[in-house]
Amino acid sequence: MHTYNHNKKSEYAFWLSYLYDNPNSIPRNLFTFTSQTIRMELKNNFIHHVYFWLKNPGSREDLAALIKGLEKLSAVPQIKFFHIGLPADTNRDVIDTTYAVSWLNVFETAEDQDVYQIHPMHLQFIEECKHLWRKVVVYDSIQH
Amino acid sequence: MHTYNHNKKSEYAFWLSYLYDNPNSIPRNLFTFTSQTIRMELKNNFIHHVYFWLKNPGSREDLAALIKGLEKLSAVPQIKFFHIGLPADTNRDVIDTTYAVSWLNVFETAEDQDVYQIHPMHLQFIEECKHLWRKVVVYDSIQH
Repeated sequence: MHTYNHNKKSEYAFWLSYLYDNPNSIPRNLFTFTSQTIRMELKNNFIHHVYFWLKNPGSREDLAALIKGLEKLSAVPQIKFFHIGLPADTNRDVIDTTYAVSWLNVFETAEDQDVYQIHPMHLQFIEECKHLWRKVVVYDSIQH
Repeated sequence: MHTYNHNKKSEYAFWLSYLYDNPNSIPRNLFTFTSQTIRMELKNNFIHHVYFWLKNPGSREDLAALIKGLEKLSAVPQIKFFHIGLPADTNRDVIDTTYAVSWLNVFETAEDQDVYQIHPMHLQFIEECKHLWRKVVVYDSIQH
């Protein structure tokens, strides 16, 4: 896997020229413009958001191991966007800050998420990391 | 607010030419390439994910009113990506399917999310729609 470590400008230039050259590579329905600013509705996508609570909440090693597992998992080709997150320092009554890791995935379709669920890399992630968590909560959402 | 209703090809063409012409409009750090496929890590972003439970879960009118409120709210300029979702028909032990509406926001920075929280359009949304929900759960996540 190649990561682009150039400056932002060349990274964007690469991206734009890649999209120009490979228009069919652009996932259908991934973007919908709602204004002329770069603000996008993730329309007609399948949102899969997982929150993990660690068995050993204080263990930096276990946290690092779970994040490493998710980074490896992020290579599953059906995933279009992903974010590996930690609780922000926001704090209001309605905010749940008790989880350890947030794993957000955007799939183009529900079918892609089905493929992801049984993908060997996903099964391997579960096998390698399931001893790390005590609780998992998942929210799957489709277009309203 | 102008929505592009042309075919996909012209929509992408517009988008690409817009980005070419306005490189500074591209949110910094919004995209990071992790491979040569169009799969992107939402790196260094602030993920704000809200789940709503309705006071009247069976009311299609209340559901529609909440979605309408969120569509209006989505115009807050700090929001970079958003998704208004309903529970998917996936069903496993770990999946919470009891919520009514999912409201996913991607902000470039924690500061943008702070601005959003006190934005007049956000305060107006709360004022107009708070009678619709009985429970809200929020997860805020930052880059690991």
